[in-house]
Amino acid sequence: MIIDKYFENRRELINKALAKYLDSDNTKPEIIHRAMRYSVLAGGKRLRPTLMLATYEMLVNRRDKRAIQQALPVACAIEMLHTASLVHDDLPFIDNADERRGKPSCHKKFGNAIAILAGDALMTKGFETVLKLRNSKKAIQCLEELIEAASTRGMIGGQVVDITSSQKRVKLHILRDIHLKKTGALLRAAERCACILANATEQITNALSDFALNIGLAYQVIDDILDEVGADDLLDKESGEDQRNEKVTYPTLLGIEESKRQALKLIYDAQNIIKYIPNNNVLLEIVERIHDRIP
Amino acid sequence: MIIDKYFENRRELINKALAKYLDSDNTKPEIIHRAMRYSVLAGGKRLRPTLMLATYEMLVNRRDKRAIQQALPVACAIEMLHTASLVHDDLPFIDNADERRGKPSCHKKFGNAIAILAGDALMTKGFETVLKLRNSKKAIQCLEELIEAASTRGMIGGQVVDITSSQKRVKLHILRDIHLKKTGALLRAAERCACILANATEQITNALSDFALNIGLAYQVIDDILDEVGADDLLDKESGEDQRNEKVTYPTLLGIEESKRQALKLIYDAQNIIKYIPNNNVLLEIVERIHDRIP
Repeated sequence: MIIDKYFENRRELINKALAKYLDSDNTKPEIIHRAMRYSVLAGGKRLRPTLMLATYEMLVNRRDKRAIQQALPVACAIEMLHTASLVHDDLPFIDNADERRGKPSCHKKFGNAIAILAGDALMTKGFETVLKLRNSKKAIQCLEELIEAASTRGMIGGQVVDITSSQKRVKLHILRDIHLKKTGALLRAAERCACILANATEQITNALSDFALNIGLAYQVIDDILDEVGADDLLDKESGEDQRNEKVTYPTLLGIEESKRQALKLIYDAQNIIKYIPNNNVLLEIVERIHDRIP
Repeated sequence: MIIDKYFENRRELINKALAKYLDSDNTKPEIIHRAMRYSVLAGGKRLRPTLMLATYEMLVNRRDKRAIQQALPVACAIEMLHTASLVHDDLPFIDNADERRGKPSCHKKFGNAIAILAGDALMTKGFETVLKLRNSKKAIQCLEELIEAASTRGMIGGQVVDITSSQKRVKLHILRDIHLKKTGALLRAAERCACILANATEQITNALSDFALNIGLAYQVIDDILDEVGADDLLDKESGEDQRNEKVTYPTLLGIEESKRQALKLIYDAQNIIKYIPNNNVLLEIVERIHDRIP
């Protein structure tokens, strides 16, 4: 299938660019660069940077290498910020996760001190990578979006609510807010950065922002379901982690069937939002693949 | 003494601006904003932002409020990045410091998880605050300097070398490198940002960069001496902390007397670097006050 080749190719371009931006393992001090590369280059679906590239290519209606090069620094920055948050979230006093992407998590491999500093360094490196854009104004606009997504109004805020509400009976709207901030915010920033680089209209930008929040929430609801039914092969983490951490999830609040219905509704809405945008085939395929994860 | 009034006034302006930028304790989620404000507004000499303001005022030869307003966002950003690094450094698996600025450190007050996220949030907020500058090009240039200072080539790198060399017999040039990265790098960025905002020449920028590295190293050598002789009242941390953490210091390598000589030499060089820059009186006074800390 041609679209498989597309995803494979973009993932390769992203991985190569990430490896290039992350210096080499020999850069001093060696251990922190090893830890950064270990965490970022461990694999992963590259959902966020792929979504950003695909959106940018859709908007400028070009798929050549030069077009992609324009968007690659920001796409890589987004993956670095995402990984930075995973490295800190996995720490013993936060989510206490021993594994990530099928390998020992950063602190298990390098110790807590280096993992904290590697998360810091990846965040810094992410912002640094945005500055590779030649256009100062667009660089600033992208930074504004990424900082918004990372801040206490986005990922950090979501993680704080997550921590402070575990072992409590949280309500559905709070759980939804946690997912929107922890996962939705950075996907939304990916879409908005693609729009900035492609000079998209405000209308398209707002539509794609909502699209991102919908697929982000759908993705998390499905993750909750997969965690509940024990589908390890489809998860980046070990299943049952949420129960061990006594976290409230969509299935614990609504049951499996109603959670599936909500995920389907989010996916349906996402499809509708981008229905009339030209060249939307790759984005529709991304939605389809999220849909296919529903067990 | 007029200069005391100057420092007091600038510290007040910085504290007010920091409080303004850091939202209120009621911003949701409340606990993270409380932790950020607790750590930043706990006090401290405000050496970095004061040095930046003083340098900017010297270069533009103005001391009015409007001039200061130009430099305040970046000055505050520097203090936030500095505090972010302190919050993470104080954590149990890094420096394990229970106190900071005479109060319980962030993790002692809010727990490890919130302290990690508060450090992340302060770093993000610092970069966000730089974006308050209206001039995109200067904002980008300042961000480049601050990212360089925070990165694995600066503060994070210095902390990594510090961790990996504790309990080892490190040589003097490594200890010097740790101090230059952990303390010198951000002071250097403060000077370079002042130069960017004031449109200083390359020659002045380079001179002030070296000046910053000199006073940064002098400050740390004197801190090492104060830690050794047990002068708690002059330290931000508890004395004896370096011995407890089995850290090599200037006095353990060179003895107290030779360490003092080296500090004096650094101060003398710093004075010489700025000797012929007009309106240098506040900067000379800052050097003098660092000198006066020598016991």
